[in-house]
Amino acid sequence: MTSPDPALLSINTATVRAQWALPEIVAGLARHDIRGISPWRDQVARTGVKQAAQLIRDAGLAVSGLCRGGMFPAPDAQGRRAALDDNRRAVDEAATLGAHCLVLVVGGLPKDARGAIVSKDLAGAREMVRDGIGELLDYARSAGVPLAIEPLHPMYAGDRACVNTMAHANDLCDELAPNGKDGLGIAVDVYHVWWDPGLKVQIERAGAHDRLYAYHICDWLVPTADLLNDRGMMGDGVIDLRLIRGWMQAAGYRGMHEVEIFSSNNWWKRDGDEVLLTCRMRHEQAS
Amino acid sequence: MTSPDPALLSINTATVRAQWALPEIVAGLARHDIRGISPWRDQVARTGVKQAAQLIRDAGLAVSGLCRGGMFPAPDAQGRRAALDDNRRAVDEAATLGAHCLVLVVGGLPKDARGAIVSKDLAGAREMVRDGIGELLDYARSAGVPLAIEPLHPMYAGDRACVNTMAHANDLCDELAPNGKDGLGIAVDVYHVWWDPGLKVQIERAGAHDRLYAYHICDWLVPTADLLNDRGMMGDGVIDLRLIRGWMQAAGYRGMHEVEIFSSNNWWKRDGDEVLLTCRMRHEQAS
Repeated sequence: MTSPDPALLSINTATVRAQWALPEIVAGLARHDIRGISPWRDQVARTGVKQAAQLIRDAGLAVSGLCRGGMFPAPDAQGRRAALDDNRRAVDEAATLGAHCLVLVVGGLPKDARGAIVSKDLAGAREMVRDGIGELLDYARSAGVPLAIEPLHPMYAGDRACVNTMAHANDLCDELAPNGKDGLGIAVDVYHVWWDPGLKVQIERAGAHDRLYAYHICDWLVPTADLLNDRGMMGDGVIDLRLIRGWMQAAGYRGMHEVEIFSSNNWWKRDGDEVLLTCRMRHEQAS
Repeated sequence: MTSPDPALLSINTATVRAQWALPEIVAGLARHDIRGISPWRDQVARTGVKQAAQLIRDAGLAVSGLCRGGMFPAPDAQGRRAALDDNRRAVDEAATLGAHCLVLVVGGLPKDARGAIVSKDLAGAREMVRDGIGELLDYARSAGVPLAIEPLHPMYAGDRACVNTMAHANDLCDELAPNGKDGLGIAVDVYHVWWDPGLKVQIERAGAHDRLYAYHICDWLVPTADLLNDRGMMGDGVIDLRLIRGWMQAAGYRGMHEVEIFSSNNWWKRDGDEVLLTCRMRHEQAS
């Protein structure tokens, strides 16, 4: 396996969110000759969507994705409508930014307005997710924004996303967009799926239907100190990143390699330039 | 769904390991009229295997399982032989204790003598697990000790167990013990498998082959503060325990309901009698 093309490196803005606002991130990427960005909506909102789009365009950056839409389940119809409205706004923002896709973190069990989970009906939540994506899909197609379902690690099934395997994401695509190339695909994040014994087969399945819309990299640390914010830099953990990249490439994926690291006790405490420099080096040497 | 029979309640000794040694646990179970126990090997060793077996027998307790065998992967043949030797000792102890099964936590990626992971070859680790169980099985059959593969949550794939789904455990049983009723089955722990969209089908599959050897209960807390030691008491989390118990019963499981809670900041800090009383109440009311 040869080293990846450095031009394929993209940085998810969460990786340096503790250090920099969006304009500083864009400037930092230029300093390190990094060609891709994937912003979070809250960071975009603080800059303003149009201004952010202009900044990114002026810097010549590709937008490998917008994070994030989703969070479909809600205890009642009003809540689900509100979620759908917010998802339509996310689609509009992705269109303005020229994002390659809108990443969907689909949501877990239904929560009340204060964020407390109010139901243990996981199968029901999964139905709400299917229905929500189905409703959003027409709008996204009209806007020309591909939707990328991101299966999240099973440890987030309750509170963040009840789609936890590539197989489930592929099943949803089969059901809602059976023809492939019709605006619904998958964002493969190694952190969430590396453990899955069916990963290779499910990447092949997604590739055969042109559904591989994004590829996110980082590493799984042993031990992991926190369920949310202890992701590792490529090479510091136990994921065989070259193996998985090989599977992605063999399945036809030619898109960017987006580094997304939440790390409250390590990378978020370091200088932003050090983080980007390390991302560049580790992308080449360890992914 | 009716409440479960209180006579089916069993306590995994890890649940009160911070409070009591094994003799105190046995006495505590008697005080609370709890009929089952599932000890850990280190706790048994401190009392002495024969003395522990005598204590448990004198108290009239059923032994729903012994925790644990497994940990098969190692970087070299010598390490794998050492693991197998230790597993044979675990089988002997399970036989002495009259345990219903020896629970197998199969191990993750291979580690060196200091406990550092030395390989990212997850598929290779899974082969070592298959081979290790295959080698142990003859010995366990001779000793009359059923082996129960416990699929662990995917968040433990790197360091504790690379069998992370019921489907994988069923596949291993199909391969190594295709006839059912031949000494290899599955320990279903809700904490590890509750998120799996294939859970119902895989419980049915295991039940159809008489492979449901154990059923462990607790709850998944949102948020979860620690990957290892923040399990919840039944009813305090988001798992639909009655639903899953219904699936187990429908699949033919008639064994005990074993409460296994690792909880460094909550239940391990409470009085042991309060913990057992709560286990009894919640088993009846919320599982």
